[in-house]
Amino acid sequence: MKLTQYSDLGFRLMMYLAMCTDKLVTIQEVSERFNISKNHLVKISHQLTKVGLIESVRGRNGGVRLALPPEDINVEMVLQATEDDFELVECFNSVSNQCVISDVCKLNCLLDEALEAFLEKLRKVSLADLVGDGRVIEGALLPFPGGVVVKFRNLPARAKGVK
Amino acid sequence: MKLTQYSDLGFRLMMYLAMCTDKLVTIQEVSERFNISKNHLVKISHQLTKVGLIESVRGRNGGVRLALPPEDINVEMVLQATEDDFELVECFNSVSNQCVISDVCKLNCLLDEALEAFLEKLRKVSLADLVGDGRVIEGALLPFPGGVVVKFRNLPARAKGVK
Repeated sequence: MKLTQYSDLGFRLMMYLAMCTDKLVTIQEVSERFNISKNHLVKISHQLTKVGLIESVRGRNGGVRLALPPEDINVEMVLQATEDDFELVECFNSVSNQCVISDVCKLNCLLDEALEAFLEKLRKVSLADLVGDGRVIEGALLPFPGGVVVKFRNLPARAKGVK
Repeated sequence: MKLTQYSDLGFRLMMYLAMCTDKLVTIQEVSERFNISKNHLVKISHQLTKVGLIESVRGRNGGVRLALPPEDINVEMVLQATEDDFELVECFNSVSNQCVISDVCKLNCLLDEALEAFLEKLRKVSLADLVGDGRVIEGALLPFPGGVVVKFRNLPARAKGVK
């Protein structure tokens, strides 16, 4: 049971953007600070732009930024945008399903409940909850030769279920 | 977000065995009744035998059966035996992890909590809860030319969180 690499990198991108709400961020910057593939990030930021979670500004001084305040984007919203689907088992897709017992099987309802319990946990935590004022994460990121100006956000430390 | 096909087919095998506690079942029978690959089922039953959830009896009249009463095998136990791992994101594997912020990141704790919420739902439901007395599922299965003798189990209908 895994999430896609797309989601994994999407979380990092969104957390970084939640730390940098005062400026436009280039994909190059995110790529260098996390040491992750720029190509992957370009695709992910395109998808996150498409669903309205980030805004993209073109041009020489362009870049991306969150389309909403980090308090208003929860972790489930990011996951819903980056996972291909949540078809845990074959019968979750009614078109391609071939399981002969799916109409009478209680397992699909159970898995549906379990998935909802999983997503509910993520729904309760926002990007703001995850990054706090950004200082701790900033200290762990790699340096960016272009010079980074992360203006730390003045947020009260919050926990909301996150240890 | 998906479970492996291994788990999907493993659930079907275990539910069938939970319906047939009075006899040894051949993989051929399960394959024909569900119209699923015999080769896949052989691998899955080998794995489920290895972890002690099913017993295999060799020989001409051999087959497989549950190693425990269906009331004592919950859905999480099956999933734990059939999934390769539960490494939702890169940092869940401390050996191969390359994420630079994992030591200070709150996301891994959150995903851990969400995974636990998912598994907790499955832990509360047994194979006996899923199959009931077996009649409804039996009615949906394909016929088996070899002749099937499913002796329906005399269980009270239970719900335990399953709709």
